[in-house]
Amino acid sequence: MPQQDKSDLRAFFEPGSVAVFGSLREGFGLGYGMVRSLRQFGYSGKIYPVSPFHSEVVGMKAYSSVEEVTEPVEAAIVITPPPTVPRIVQQCAHKGVKAVIIVSENFAEAGGDGAKYQRQLEDIARRTGIRIIGPNTVGVFNPATGFLTNPYIIVQDKIRQGGVAYCSQTGSVGLAAKPLEERSYPVRLLCDIGNKCDVDESDVLNYLANDHKTKAVAMHLENARDGRRFIEAARRVVARKPLLIIKGGKSEAGAEAMVSHTGSLAGNEQVYDAVIKQVGALRLSSWEEYWDVPRVFNSQPLPRGNRVAIITGSGGLGVTVIDTAVGSGLVMAKFSAATQKRLKKLFRRLGGNPVDLGPVLSVAEDPFTKQRQIIEAVLEDENVDCVAASIYVGFDALIHYIAETFDSLKKHMSKTIAIHLYGMKTQVLEEMLRQLEARGLPTYLDFDLAVKSLGFAARYSGIRMGLEQS
Amino acid sequence: MPQQDKSDLRAFFEPGSVAVFGSLREGFGLGYGMVRSLRQFGYSGKIYPVSPFHSEVVGMKAYSSVEEVTEPVEAAIVITPPPTVPRIVQQCAHKGVKAVIIVSENFAEAGGDGAKYQRQLEDIARRTGIRIIGPNTVGVFNPATGFLTNPYIIVQDKIRQGGVAYCSQTGSVGLAAKPLEERSYPVRLLCDIGNKCDVDESDVLNYLANDHKTKAVAMHLENARDGRRFIEAARRVVARKPLLIIKGGKSEAGAEAMVSHTGSLAGNEQVYDAVIKQVGALRLSSWEEYWDVPRVFNSQPLPRGNRVAIITGSGGLGVTVIDTAVGSGLVMAKFSAATQKRLKKLFRRLGGNPVDLGPVLSVAEDPFTKQRQIIEAVLEDENVDCVAASIYVGFDALIHYIAETFDSLKKHMSKTIAIHLYGMKTQVLEEMLRQLEARGLPTYLDFDLAVKSLGFAARYSGIRMGLEQS
Repeated sequence: MPQQDKSDLRAFFEPGSVAVFGSLREGFGLGYGMVRSLRQFGYSGKIYPVSPFHSEVVGMKAYSSVEEVTEPVEAAIVITPPPTVPRIVQQCAHKGVKAVIIVSENFAEAGGDGAKYQRQLEDIARRTGIRIIGPNTVGVFNPATGFLTNPYIIVQDKIRQGGVAYCSQTGSVGLAAKPLEERSYPVRLLCDIGNKCDVDESDVLNYLANDHKTKAVAMHLENARDGRRFIEAARRVVARKPLLIIKGGKSEAGAEAMVSHTGSLAGNEQVYDAVIKQVGALRLSSWEEYWDVPRVFNSQPLPRGNRVAIITGSGGLGVTVIDTAVGSGLVMAKFSAATQKRLKKLFRRLGGNPVDLGPVLSVAEDPFTKQRQIIEAVLEDENVDCVAASIYVGFDALIHYIAETFDSLKKHMSKTIAIHLYGMKTQVLEEMLRQLEARGLPTYLDFDLAVKSLGFAARYSGIRMGLEQS
Repeated sequence: MPQQDKSDLRAFFEPGSVAVFGSLREGFGLGYGMVRSLRQFGYSGKIYPVSPFHSEVVGMKAYSSVEEVTEPVEAAIVITPPPTVPRIVQQCAHKGVKAVIIVSENFAEAGGDGAKYQRQLEDIARRTGIRIIGPNTVGVFNPATGFLTNPYIIVQDKIRQGGVAYCSQTGSVGLAAKPLEERSYPVRLLCDIGNKCDVDESDVLNYLANDHKTKAVAMHLENARDGRRFIEAARRVVARKPLLIIKGGKSEAGAEAMVSHTGSLAGNEQVYDAVIKQVGALRLSSWEEYWDVPRVFNSQPLPRGNRVAIITGSGGLGVTVIDTAVGSGLVMAKFSAATQKRLKKLFRRLGGNPVDLGPVLSVAEDPFTKQRQIIEAVLEDENVDCVAASIYVGFDALIHYIAETFDSLKKHMSKTIAIHLYGMKTQVLEEMLRQLEARGLPTYLDFDLAVKSLGFAARYSGIRMGLEQS
């Protein structure tokens, strides 16, 4: 059997056809759930449900085995009991399937026979060249093709397409775990690599490095299966796009827990920390950062330096946020004399950084015009590399004006900007967030997170400049 | 004129009557906004709108001056131009008003004449004994009495009553800035002390120390006006309830910005840090923490130690959260042999900490019963002081079952618990959050924040035990 190009994971994310192995019992069967989810998200490839117990599911023909399918099959999703999985994957390999995602649990992470079945899978992958993601994974999701391998109930039927590839070793940050659509996360791909019996973090990084639609990679890492390959792959990513890593096991207790989670040994924490730094990746320190920091890389230019302007609705908020900025490696921009003059002309007490909108907006005849003029002056200052702007959106009626403000500011958007929204209704804030994100503006509901994201952007920018000069 | 008891700020939060000074122009007048807000929140005291230009506002009689009011007036809200304010406050003092909240801006923070007017206010307060909050503040909000001084549009008409007093030197964390009701923040009081011409942080702390409905104090501090008084007041609070402080000016740039915000000089950062530690207060490091950490103190017992059990829907999520726990001063509890046995009986692969619900719930016949039994076993372990439980609430239909789970767990609630919710719909998560909060369970939409909160609870518990032993 000819070996396929092993670095090409395309068949996992945009297969033209997929076989689904799993219970097709209506309502509760996990195979049924898969088929339903694929249709719900408008997957346009051919779907071949496979089950010995059914001849039909949701109006589609079901097959008793993959060999019964006469057309070629590119990918397979398997969610059947562990003892049945090796034979299914062997049959898939024989059929010429390129990519198998094994969602079933109870392999190496459960020990006992599970470990044995996982070794059999490793062996099949090695022998036949078929690629495997999993087992013990919720697999992948590609909003562009509607291809997903999630057997659980998903209440939305589309997710915003964007440039961030999220890759994890846990399913609980997947499609079902986060208000992805309501919060308008710009998703290129979601991928849970599970127990990594074949495809591992290095494979995914190599693939994403070459995927021109991926603008940033957020990776949750428990361990790297092959240190050298990981370093090479991470470097390949960092040369082209930011690589943001959340790594468990920083504390000793965390390291211990990792061992039992995916059945793989934890590495030495200091070594990982050094490697992450050495390759130019950036370490995230919370799940909030994992989800939200990459927003800033989706549609914004990289800042040319680390000088930040902070525009706030309140002086008090601004002050504590400066501490966050400094802690994130930013420095407060000092406005040019021209900008200071321009700001003072707009309002006597302006001119410094942070820029406090509060007093001026409370007296302005046309606060939206004033707000726009102030942001414009700041964005145009030669001493400013990036801008964090905190905007009040208390109620519905303001959405329109704020959208207009940023529409007319578009032409000044050569600087990196991150927007923070605050107000009293979640739905209003989320609607405004979606409208601004649709305009290419990274938007946050937490000011500290917005500022931190600019810090990450500036740090990556510095790393890229260093790489390009060397 | 007899001096009133200066430490009693009750008239600011639950006055029986209030005079409102400000433009009564329908729709846009700030005095009009105040009156409308007071009615919207069901303030039951008498309201006396005062304006020389109107004789009536929203169906109420307006007065040309406070002297025209024949009944006694307990409090006043002032939102008129700075030059008019000293005379108004003087008249209020003469009338016997106890508490004035000056919302107007452009006093000391603006320099020039503003500083002069502020000095006049300080002088009136000193001379007459009238107490003043502000100027340059959004003032106070008390959900129990419906008393508020916010002139802006507020879209909700009630806020959950709870035990957390939030005190800031910025209005942008006030009533209009946060989805307080949707996220079910347990509010005892909101208070922005603004420029502190009279009432300062120490006054507020002294008041809150004695207020038995206040279970925790979250304070945003720029500087302390009188170091010795602040230390005494903070100690008084800490002896009875936790004091959580977010302090701007940690970085040099932050300290500089503080000066221009409320016209007060920043203190030395190291000194503040030492003072906060010395008095037993706990320092917060973000606005998210400011809002959410106090939840854990609202209705939960203090943990007797720092041994945490982490219950997670995913091993991977659990691992990184352990690092957060350790970073927050917690240690991973080691379950007793009996608990380990009990957990293993529920599911072969359980027994360790963190407790991974993922594998067991995906195969359990009745996952909700299983989930309850697991949490119960963990809560009953003698080696566990507190529990962080991450619960999946993907869609509406689960809300009922999870509420039932925690209802039946109630009798085991002698341990401190913090709940994290995850799922794909904000509205579902918020509804579940409100239902759990209503049951006295501190509930978070960010796992790290839930764990950090337990860390704060354990640290405060340690401080309290230390105080009681000494």
